[in-house]
Order: sequence, then C-alpha cells, then structure tokens
Amino acid sequence: MAKKNETAIRPTRAENYPEWYQQVIRASDMAELSPVRGCMVIKPWGYALWENMVRALDDMFKATGVKNAYFPLFIPISFLEKEAGHVEGFAKECAVVTHHKLEKDKDNRLVPAGKLNEPLIVRPTSETIIGDAFARWIKSYRDLPMLINQWANVVRWEMRTRIFLRTSEFLWQEGHTVHATKKEAIDRTYMMLDVYKKMAEEYLAIPVITGEKTAAEKFPGAEITTCIEAMMQDRKALQAGTSHFLGQNFAKASEIRFQSAMETEEYCWTTSWGVSTRLIGGIIMTHSDDNGIILPPRVASAHVVLLPILKKNETNETVMEYTRSVAEALRKKTYHHGPVRVEIDDRNIGGARNWEWIKKGVPLRVEIGPKDMDADSVYVSRRDRDRKDSFAIQKDSFAEHICDLLDEIQDGLYQKALAFLKENTRNIDDLDEFNKFFTPESSGKPEIHGGFAISHWCGSADCELAIKERLNVTIRCIPFDREKEDGQCIHCGSHSEGRVVFAKSY
Amino acid sequence: MAKKNETAIRPTRAENYPEWYQQVIRASDMAELSPVRGCMVIKPWGYALWENMVRALDDMFKATGVKNAYFPLFIPISFLEKEAGHVEGFAKECAVVTHHKLEKDKDNRLVPAGKLNEPLIVRPTSETIIGDAFARWIKSYRDLPMLINQWANVVRWEMRTRIFLRTSEFLWQEGHTVHATKKEAIDRTYMMLDVYKKMAEEYLAIPVITGEKTAAEKFPGAEITTCIEAMMQDRKALQAGTSHFLGQNFAKASEIRFQSAMETEEYCWTTSWGVSTRLIGGIIMTHSDDNGIILPPRVASAHVVLLPILKKNETNETVMEYTRSVAEALRKKTYHHGPVRVEIDDRNIGGARNWEWIKKGVPLRVEIGPKDMDADSVYVSRRDRDRKDSFAIQKDSFAEHICDLLDEIQDGLYQKALAFLKENTRNIDDLDEFNKFFTPESSGKPEIHGGFAISHWCGSADCELAIKERLNVTIRCIPFDREKEDGQCIHCGSHSEGRVVFAKSY
Repeated sequence: MAKKNETAIRPTRAENYPEWYQQVIRASDMAELSPVRGCMVIKPWGYALWENMVRALDDMFKATGVKNAYFPLFIPISFLEKEAGHVEGFAKECAVVTHHKLEKDKDNRLVPAGKLNEPLIVRPTSETIIGDAFARWIKSYRDLPMLINQWANVVRWEMRTRIFLRTSEFLWQEGHTVHATKKEAIDRTYMMLDVYKKMAEEYLAIPVITGEKTAAEKFPGAEITTCIEAMMQDRKALQAGTSHFLGQNFAKASEIRFQSAMETEEYCWTTSWGVSTRLIGGIIMTHSDDNGIILPPRVASAHVVLLPILKKNETNETVMEYTRSVAEALRKKTYHHGPVRVEIDDRNIGGARNWEWIKKGVPLRVEIGPKDMDADSVYVSRRDRDRKDSFAIQKDSFAEHICDLLDEIQDGLYQKALAFLKENTRNIDDLDEFNKFFTPESSGKPEIHGGFAISHWCGSADCELAIKERLNVTIRCIPFDREKEDGQCIHCGSHSEGRVVFAKSY
Repeated sequence: MAKKNETAIRPTRAENYPEWYQQVIRASDMAELSPVRGCMVIKPWGYALWENMVRALDDMFKATGVKNAYFPLFIPISFLEKEAGHVEGFAKECAVVTHHKLEKDKDNRLVPAGKLNEPLIVRPTSETIIGDAFARWIKSYRDLPMLINQWANVVRWEMRTRIFLRTSEFLWQEGHTVHATKKEAIDRTYMMLDVYKKMAEEYLAIPVITGEKTAAEKFPGAEITTCIEAMMQDRKALQAGTSHFLGQNFAKASEIRFQSAMETEEYCWTTSWGVSTRLIGGIIMTHSDDNGIILPPRVASAHVVLLPILKKNETNETVMEYTRSVAEALRKKTYHHGPVRVEIDDRNIGGARNWEWIKKGVPLRVEIGPKDMDADSVYVSRRDRDRKDSFAIQKDSFAEHICDLLDEIQDGLYQKALAFLKENTRNIDDLDEFNKFFTPESSGKPEIHGGFAISHWCGSADCELAIKERLNVTIRCIPFDREKEDGQCIHCGSHSEGRVVFAKSY
C-alpha cells in the first residue's frame, strides 16, 4: 500500500523506466514471464484486455470482407527457403522441431526420438504456408480478391525478452490477401493500416504516426512496409502494427497464379498485415503513471469495480444487496457494442483493496457504504484523476451517465498522449542538436530519451546505418504526410527531398 | 452437379463410409489436409463454424465463473516428467523442439543450429505448465477456487490422421481449475461435463451418453475421467468431450498447495476438461447425408443464403435490390444472441450454385427471381427437407418466422440423431449376439458397425482388453444413469453389477 506522497509503483518512471515497466505489469496482475525461456503467461486481467482488442479488430476486419481461417503451426524448412529475403529474416530466430517423440535412454532419461526427415520450424509468420494454400485455392480472377485472416500464436526466438514487447512466443493476427492487380493490393495495404490506426487511436487511445519503412526496416520479402509508430513515455518509438505490400514476391515463391478475364495466366499480388499482444505493451507505456496502468475504457478488462464497504455488522447484507442492484443497473447499459463490464470486490482487506484496483487500472472505482446507501448514491473515483476529485453521485444518475464518463476518460487519455507526442516531436536540422537530443545523459535520466526527431535524410542506406550504429537511432518511417521540402541530410549534408522520423525504438 | 437420383457426394455412406466422410468435407469447403504431415488447414467456412462454437462455449464457461488466460506453447521435458502417468501417455506422440535457429551447412543447405540445453515439447495438453503457474499463484484458501480456461492449439503427433477427428495439430480449449476440497473439484468436473452435454445436444444437435471412463481409458494422470459419447452414422462412437477429476496428482507433481482457513498447509485438488475441433467431425458424421453436410442452425457458418436469379437483362438490378432488402430484413432478426447470418451469392453459374450451398449445408436456401419479386415473396428450400418441399412465402412473413424455421430445423436434426442413437443401441447378454453385432461382414456393409452394445462387464481390465483385442471394441463409458442390476460379464461370465457401453470408436 502506498503512503501519502508515495507512489504505488517503485521505482517511478523517472527513477528507472525499464524497471518501472516490469513493476507496472506485476502490480496490474496482467502477465508474467514463464519458466520457459522468453515465453510469457498472460493472466486473466491481461487476457480479458486482449479479448476485447481481438473482438474490436475482428469486427473491423470482417467489415472489409476479410474471413478468418487457420493454417498449420509448423512450416517445412523448404517452404521458408522459397523466398530469399524471407528466409534471411527469420532463419536466425526460429524454434526447430526435429523429433516426434521422447524415449528413455540407457540412463533412464527422456530424450528426443523419432527423427523427422525434414525438420519443421514453428511459424514465425505464415506467408509461405498460407501461400502454398492460396496456390491450390486460386484458379481464376473470379476467386479474387481472397481476403484471409488468422488469429494465432507465433514464435521468434528472442535472446533478450521484455514482456509483451518482445517475447519468443506471442499472440497476433496475420492477414493475408491476394489480388489480381498491383493497385488493388496496394490499396488493401493502406486500407488495413487505416484499420490499425483506428484501432490504436480510437480504441487504445494511442496516437500514431503512419508512414512507410525504409528498405533497411522493411519486412523480409516485402516491396513496401507501412507502419503505425507510437511514442512511449520514455519517448522511444513503438512499432505498433505493420501492413505490407508484398508485390509478386511471395506469389512467385509459392506459384500463386490466376487466369485473367482475358484468359492469360498471371501471378497474383499479395499483402500481409499484423498486430500482436505487443499492443498491450504499448497501452501500458502510453497510459500508465507511477501508480500503475490506466486502461482505456473501450478495451478495458472491466469498466467499473464496485467496492462495498463491509464492516462486519448487520448493514453488510443490505450494502451487498444495494451493490448488486448498482451492478445490475450498470450492466444494462451498452458501451460500444457490449454491456458495461462490472466487477464486484467484496473482500474486507482495508485500503489495499482500493490500491489493487488503482494498479489494475480499472477506469472507475465505486465505493458503496451505508451512508451512500442512505443517500441513494455512490462514491466514484476516476483512475485518470486525483483521489481528491472523487465525487458522490445519485445511483440512477451514475448509471445514466456511465457511458459519457467512460468516453470522457477515453478521450482524456488520447488527448494527453497526443499532447505528449507533439511536445516531444521536434524538427531538427542541426547535427549537434540531433546528437544531444538522443544522448540521454543530457537529460539526467539515462532511460528517458529525446523523442521523435523530424529531420532530413538523403535516402542513403549508409547514412541510415551510420546513425543507427552511432546513436542506436533508426528511421521509424517516412511519414505519409511529409511535405516536399529541400534540405540537407542530417548525417552527410547531401541534398534531401524531405524529412523522416528518427527515434530510438523498442 | 448431381443428376436426378444421383447424390452430390460419391461414394455414398453405404458404399464407403470413410471415403464419404472425406468427400463431404471436400465438398463443403470446410477444411483440407495440409502439406505438413497430419496438420489441417481450416478454411473460412469451417472456421466460421468453429468461431460460433467457441463463442457459445466461452459464454457458458464464463457464466460459471471461469476466466480465460494464455500459457506457453512449449513445455520443458522436465515438467512433463513430473507426473508419471502423464508422461507415459504423451511421450510417444509429441513434437520436440531441439534447436532455436537455422544455419547453412557446407553444402549451403539450411540445417538446425543453436542446440537447446533442454529440449522443449510442443504442448499436447497443459496440465504441467499451468500447474507450475498455479503453484506460484495460489497461497491461501482465499485464492481458491481458481477457474481458468485457455483457447489454444495443441500437438499430438499422429501416425494415422483423419481430418477434424485425429490430426497432429488441433484447436481446442482446456479448462483447469483448482479447489480446496475434493468434493468441490468433483462437483466442478461434473459441472463442466454438463456444459459439454448442453453444447453437444442444444447447439450441435448431437445426443450424447454421459458416463465415466474405465481405468484403461482414463486421461493419463486423472483419478476420474468423465466423458460425452456420441454415435456417428456408421454407428461408431465418438468421444466428443472429457472432464477430468485429477485428484491431488498434479497438485503433488507441481507443488500446488494452499494454506487452509485453519492455517494448515494442504495440497489442492484439480480438474481439467476439454473439447476440440474434433466436434466438427462429430457434426459432420451426425448430420450429413449423401448430398453433404447439414449445419445445425445454432452454430451454422451462415443461416441463409440468398440466391438472386439473374438473367442478364434489365430486371437484374431490381432483383439485386430486392435481394438486399431481404438480407437487411433478415439481419435485423436476432437468432440466439446474434443477428441472423445471411450470405448473398449472385454468381451466374446455373444449377451448380444451388448444389454448392447444399453441399455446404446452409440450413436455408432462398431463391429470388423476378416472379418472386412481383409477388413480394421468396422461394425457400430447407436443407433438411426434399427439394420438392420448397415453398414460396411472403418476404415479410419469412423474416417474421425465420427464427422459428431455424429452431424447427435444429430440433429436427436433434430428434433424428436421437432416434438413430436409440435404434442402434441394444442390451446384449449373449456373447454370440455381441460378436455378431460387432462383425461388420454380417451387415454386408463392411464400414457400418453394430452400434452401442449395453452389456454386463465384471470390472476386470483383462476382460476389457480381451474384447478390445478380439473385436476392436472398447468400453466407451460406465453410464451415469446405469441401474444396479445383477448379470454376467459378456466376456468371462463372472458376476457383474451393471451394464456398460461397448462400441467401436474413433
């Protein structure tokens, strides 16, 4: 329990940002690292958040005509090899299945047995195995476009893991679409990025910059990778979602062809796009304060927790009854397509109970004691406001206005994050300033970085690499909304046609 | 396209049941085997069915207080070894991950590299990895009961695969609960079996027998395995779901302990329970006929397909408009918690279109031509009735009665399957009759078996094994509703206290 002037999360963001992040997750009871190297356990409070995100995304995908399907977990090595860039990108970090049973050895220890003729990798992404199916399914232009999505687990063996942000196994969706024309595939690439932007901004209250990746930062095998980039509270960038135009690369690798209306045989054009449980890390690092996470209402695991004040006396049962009636009234209200999600916590554990729900980030906490009951009211605390701003409100009026309150919190979180993004995004044209911006020592807080530097870049991969090697700063994207502007590359001084977004990143 | 007196699926059930099953799946476009040994691709029409099943089950689980979570895909071998029966059951069929990257060898071929210190298996089920988390999470009786469910993919390496029924990878849910008392854990075991029975009978229209498995057929590591068993149209049994009381076996293996209210340290009592995509195989083999599958409306991928009759003339656009207005009216209706699911198929491909939807099993097909439009009506065919029973109905009246129609189809499917189950379930007390019942040659249809024989069994594992070896017939369950009745074991003639269910099975 935090005392006055103390925070619930120690260390604070300013004291040690990476450790603060771990402690926020621990305090929220959302997830933990498992004993299996680099894999996480997503606990019920974290999984409920993911379920709400899944539902919102799934509805948006389906509204654009996408259908769900499911493809094998395992990919033969020979499939991975079909696309040169792709295998290059994923061979270094994939779990390899080599045997199909266990047997006791002479020391009576279980060891792998039943060696496979061809090893299988656990999917790091599914372009090649889905491409193989597409090649079978698509015969004619009448079969196109084919719009498929898969909700699945994927594995990318990570040496340094950080829960939600970088784990060996994570949950995601991967969309895969096939088109008859290049234009249609490119349009779909942008359309799905728009869905991600909408998800981030309208559901997760995370403002994002949209743009195109440089060649160095592209998805292995893509022609164009588009992305949404968000700014975390340590001012590092988080790549929160990507949508790829794959050209005909995977169509050629997997022989995905169709007969056109003119009866010619042609290669298809494909796209792929994905977001993952990494978004949960983004929510945490965008909205948490030194008392823990603040969940954006539209996807929150619960909207309201009711905290009946039980004093081991004869009023307890009536307080509980009153509490249940409040819950019932709230659950009858619809907040964005579903009923208001209400928890009741009737444990008698003193102030620790309140702090637990602060740390879990539930948008509204509602205390209900005998006095509130007598006044036909409830006592409401907003997670996004100070405790001293808590207020009593008539029970009926609370139920009446619950959705407005939730929307107000949702909007407040977004506006605050947007202000933070703007505040820490700066046009920089001077190399010294650029260097200083990205040198944390200068801020006195070694884990808090400069932010987004909007600077000129000549387009050379060498300059990009030099900056990366010197400062660990990368080009997050070439923003869609950049204006044509003559300038000088921040690294080499050569001519540049416009600015790009530089930042440190997760 | 099937001609008069011809069936859409060849061979028919009577001609070659196993091949008929494969052809029904192919014709329905629900799934296919993938190039990865024993793994399937679930195509959109099959996956939509699964999504509806998941939603219904998930709602039922949550209504009993269960929360979803997610645990690692990989399990260290040392975890599996903790429970002796468990490792015995799964070591023979698990995918083993031994390396974490691929490298080129001297012949420039990609080979496994980065050998792991301890191999990992891909979860065949998650008792041990979830038990490890429970041991960390549970401290006191106040933390109990803990009620967790996971939706996940699992892998059990199968040598002989049959799509949906037995594949190396499949999708399922696995519930895992922890309790302070034995009684509470046993109650939960039965409670979840009841959920499965409700799911099978009320949603999938599959009547089931509930009972307890014999020691030989129990889940590896369980004290009691309860199950729902259904009868397929070849009269073989399908184990459609299981719920296990695990006693303290896994609690002791994983050190899941709690401090009781009396401050003593005690081992917990656990349960686990699961159903999988195997249920889709059960739907197919219960409800399909020689023209393909018939989807039970409550979980059907779509409820209605609208088939506008377009004749490349000036009425086309008005027919399409009329069709869309029908779709809109139908989608406004709620059928069991969701809107009526409507597809429109406006392809101009003649009679093949109608047959495609018959084979896909959509409950209602609705033709709409200029004449129907003029009469303000639609022309409806029920998948569970003959084509000659199709009828015209006023458009408004159709929308008005759509839910009744769907319920009527749902109920009809259930009643038909129930009649079939009863018809092919027989008390048998004579060994010759028993042998004949299970010897397919006698029926002239080698793949159609006797059915369920309700016969006496003395309780000896030897008799059980002898019958299995001789006839490939197993005890499906000791039914919950069996009456105490003195009799003689069908195998050895010794005294028996009651009858059990014998059958061949998938």
